[in-house]
Amino acid sequence: MAATRQKNKDARIPAHPDVRTISLQQVLEALVDPVRRHIVSALYASHEDLACGTIDLPVSKSTATHHFHVLREAGLIRQYYVGTSRMNALRRDEIDEAFPGLLRALVARPEGPSAGDA
Amino acid sequence: MAATRQKNKDARIPAHPDVRTISLQQVLEALVDPVRRHIVSALYASHEDLACGTIDLPVSKSTATHHFHVLREAGLIRQYYVGTSRMNALRRDEIDEAFPGLLRALVARPEGPSAGDA
Repeated sequence: MAATRQKNKDARIPAHPDVRTISLQQVLEALVDPVRRHIVSALYASHEDLACGTIDLPVSKSTATHHFHVLREAGLIRQYYVGTSRMNALRRDEIDEAFPGLLRALVARPEGPSAGDA
Repeated sequence: MAATRQKNKDARIPAHPDVRTISLQQVLEALVDPVRRHIVSALYASHEDLACGTIDLPVSKSTATHHFHVLREAGLIRQYYVGTSRMNALRRDEIDEAFPGLLRALVARPEGPSAGDA
């Protein structure tokens, strides 16, 4: 926890919300977007933190930055810098505690017939 | 199945989609709306089919009709008439098979701090 707080002291990243203050509505509004769900799925599958640039997204860099911002505000990811790389960590344990089964249901599965065609 | 088909022959209700053709994206777009999530939660909790008018909603009748329509199109509910009452059945088994854990994660739990205050 001390280490986590230290990460947040980086002035380039604003404070992260307490997941316990986040509503299901906020989480769903973040995850209804397919690009944001793709980011969370990539973090869920990788089991390690990923730099923004390493997640392949079909959007411009500024749009991607916006999506990461929304995910951070919704309590889904924690961001920190390593040098000049902005890293993303899925807040898996906190989300699982606040919204049991949600990550498993929404990001740990194939997307269904439409996405399967892609 | 025969009984289900018979219900759908009612010309007042269009055909229902096969849940296996529905994507997670469609389901999430339906359930991101709090009124629609409330309808599904009510059906999930009641364990029986409910007439449209028996689910208390903070919207006009025409808006409610729209929300039921979106849920039907997303494969979440099945509608049929009993006399002049339009009944709604949660397609629980089909959804559970296509999207394991989704209903439990999204509608079988408290909504979190924001909704808790309401």
